[in-house]
Amino acid sequence: MSDHHTYKKIEVVGSSKSGTDDAIRNAIAECAKSIKHLEWFEVIDTRGHIVDGQVAHYQVTLKVGFRIENS
Amino acid sequence: MSDHHTYKKIEVVGSSKSGTDDAIRNAIAECAKSIKHLEWFEVIDTRGHIVDGQVAHYQVTLKVGFRIENS
Amino acid sequence: MSDHHTYKKIEVVGSSKSGTDDAIRNAIAECAKSIKHLEWFEVIDTRGHIVDGQVAHYQVTLKVGFRIENS
Amino acid sequence: MSDHHTYKKIEVVGSSKSGTDDAIRNAIAECAKSIKHLEWFEVIDTRGHIVDGQVAHYQVTLKVGFRIENS
Amino acid sequence: MSDHHTYKKIEVVGSSKSGTDDAIRNAIAECAKSIKHLEWFEVIDTRGHIVDGQVAHYQVTLKVGFRIENS
Amino acid sequence: MSDHHTYKKIEVVGSSKSGTDDAIRNAIAECAKSIKHLEWFEVIDTRGHIVDGQVAHYQVTLKVGFRIENS
Amino acid sequence: MSDHHTYKKIEVVGSSKSGTDDAIRNAIAECAKSIKHLEWFEVIDTRGHIVDGQVAHYQVTLKVGFRIENS
Amino acid sequence: MSDHHTYKKIEVVGSSKSGTDDAIRNAIAECAKSIKHLEWFEVIDTRGHIVDGQVAHYQVTLKVGFRIENS
Amino acid sequence: MSDHHTYKKIEVVGSSKSGTDDAIRNAIAECAKSIKHLEWFEVIDTRGHIVDGQVAHYQVTLKVGFRIENS
Amino acid sequence: MSDHHTYKKIEVVGSSKSGTDDAIRNAIAECAKSIKHLEWFEVIDTRGHIVDGQVAHYQVTLKVGFRIENS
Amino acid sequence: MSDHHTYKKIEVVGSSKSGTDDAIRNAIAECAKSIKHLEWFEVIDTRGHIVDGQVAHYQVTLKVGFRIENS
Amino acid sequence: MSDHHTYKKIEVVGSSKSGTDDAIRNAIAECAKSIKHLEWFEVIDTRGHIVDGQVAHYQVTLKVGFRIENS
Repeated sequence: MSDHHTYKKIEVVGSSKSGTDDAIRNAIAECAKSIKHLEWFEVIDTRGHIVDGQVAHYQVTLKVGFRIENS
Repeated sequence: MSDHHTYKKIEVVGSSKSGTDDAIRNAIAECAKSIKHLEWFEVIDTRGHIVDGQVAHYQVTLKVGFRIENS
Repeated sequence: MSDHHTYKKIEVVGSSKSGTDDAIRNAIAECAKSIKHLEWFEVIDTRGHIVDGQVAHYQVTLKVGFRIENS
Repeated sequence: MSDHHTYKKIEVVGSSKSGTDDAIRNAIAECAKSIKHLEWFEVIDTRGHIVDGQVAHYQVTLKVGFRIENS
Repeated sequence: MSDHHTYKKIEVVGSSKSGTDDAIRNAIAECAKSIKHLEWFEVIDTRGHIVDGQVAHYQVTLKVGFRIENS
Repeated sequence: MSDHHTYKKIEVVGSSKSGTDDAIRNAIAECAKSIKHLEWFEVIDTRGHIVDGQVAHYQVTLKVGFRIENS
Repeated sequence: MSDHHTYKKIEVVGSSKSGTDDAIRNAIAECAKSIKHLEWFEVIDTRGHIVDGQVAHYQVTLKVGFRIENS
Repeated sequence: MSDHHTYKKIEVVGSSKSGTDDAIRNAIAECAKSIKHLEWFEVIDTRGHIVDGQVAHYQVTLKVGFRIENS
Repeated sequence: MSDHHTYKKIEVVGSSKSGTDDAIRNAIAECAKSIKHLEWFEVIDTRGHIVDGQVAHYQVTLKVGFRIENS
Repeated sequence: MSDHHTYKKIEVVGSSKSGTDDAIRNAIAECAKSIKHLEWFEVIDTRGHIVDGQVAHYQVTLKVGFRIENS
Repeated sequence: MSDHHTYKKIEVVGSSKSGTDDAIRNAIAECAKSIKHLEWFEVIDTRGHIVDGQVAHYQVTLKVGFRIENS
Repeated sequence: MSDHHTYKKIEVVGSSKSGTDDAIRNAIAECAKSIKHLEWFEVIDTRGHIVDGQVAHYQVTLKVGFRIENS
């Protein structure tokens, strides 16, 4: 087994009607459908849409890190 | 009708005793009292005050974008 | 009494299983165990660990400011 | 007359179907409808919308500086 | 249907002999060959190569956002 | 009375022939002519003009925060 | 043949027990297993893990650029 | 004697009613009460409080570097 | 011949009445009058002057890189 | 036992005559003399002194993170 | 006469025992000895040396812009 | 003799086949051929070229500071 690993980071935007923590959970859940060995996330940016003077969606941009298989 | 719009962004600081999502909602609600066509927000900064060793207020600095009327 | 104060800022990382606001509260509570005159915090960075495709811990890096005693 | 001036900067987002220089011109023209003594602009951010795999609008965020009257 | 979407952002570098707007169009056109649901781009960096004392290529680094299918 | 406040931040550029602190004071004095509840400022940028090999004006860009009335 | 190319950049984290240059080499080697036309890298961030008071792994985050085939 | 030194940097906020240079001097004087081998400072941020439309305090955030004893 | 080169980067500001791409070309042309081995440029900042409510000049700040002769 | 930890980060500058990796190792070794539970470091800045036209010392500024005992 | 100018920016560090404004004046005076057409400066960084627990020198890093002759 | 000095900083890019520390040494050695009173360097950026899936050159961008003679 190698004594070092290599990781890849992708950038995704999760959204939620209820709040920023939930937007993060939604993004991670979506990533987990197709990527194995997810290990960490980093919040890059938080923003959202306003409709009729109220927050309609919170949007959180994340970098998500995962280990490259067999690395 | 014009084929392009112009938007203006203002910077506001919302606060809340309960949390950061609520501070965002408070700031947007305040903006909606006097500005029409609010479309999006961007979180710039999150901080807060501490009183007696506990978070007294969460404070979130936002840029709020709205369409300039008739633009 | 002096007409000016001096403050010190330290950098801490709070964590929580439930969300970012709670991670902030945990970090402030830990600081309050050993530091007096805590006055404000600033969020520097938000990230977290993922286990089995779900957020295991939210981690929030804060700067926490406090007044230097007798300054 | 004062030997110094004070300026204010506002943040606007201009858009254009044709390109970034035109988006800047559109934003400045919109500002000039309601503000006097415009003196300079600074590009903060360039982005755009994509529709059907093509750039639909270029969007340029500008800070626009103007002299405060009688300052 | 879900009440929230997840987006992915990729980073590409477009180039053009004629100018920066054209470099953006070239990059988007290339992305559109293989990716569906492209929604927006953000300019990250602009640079270029010089040959014989003249601009040979403008190079624009973009982040391009698209909706993850079925998210 | 509400248990939270909302603040607005504007960006101004003060100038002075004598120095950077004076440019800050000039900008605040100008803001105070038309805005109530000014609470804090943040220095964003310091620059100046040079005439005949000497500093002619110091120019300091500030963000100035004030409480929105009745918020 | 086209007179312009499009490049894609991915973000990876290489690690090494011996040092930062080696962490870069490990990351590039891992990328080269699955990606053709690698052309350049940019160091984004350098960090590492500490075990028993000593550096256990150096970790270097890189953006790695490659030419999109047939672009 | 070692052929290399290690330094520590702390972050402090000095304040002054009179100006930014004085706020720096106040912060350094406070640090010197309890820390030896102070060697340099770096200005991180300048801000201040406004009372009755005038600057009440200038506040300068500094990093202050000092040599760790016997390092 | 050496197996490595050393480059120098200078910072220039080009201007143009017509647009940002032209401001870049003007800056490079001016550099090429006195510097050999120009190889690349990087856009640092874009701004401009406004006269009578219209863009009078686009100004683009560039870093221009060239190989040091015989390096 | 708590289900969450709190970490503190300090900023140190390590130096070395031989290179940047060694400057990191020297800084960590110095920290390990007085701090337990060191877990990670982040490189903030790399610089150095030049004497007689040669690098005399490499200096690396690090943030070093450690777990607060009993947190 | 050309309808556009090209400017060059150089980076200098001025110092002073008395304060930051004076450090700026010293740097500009030094530049004016050898460069014509100096037009503006931008403050990049402020730091200083500490001797015996007091500020010994304020050091201000500036970019200084000047028009290239005959451009 | 003056009680203050003025320094100039230039930006150079050193390269090396073997590693980043060596790229720094190469850049400093090249500067020392033509500039006196070199005092310090600051690493701005680290990148490199990849050939055949391997690092061909490490490239380190530095700012190099030197004292202006007779200042």
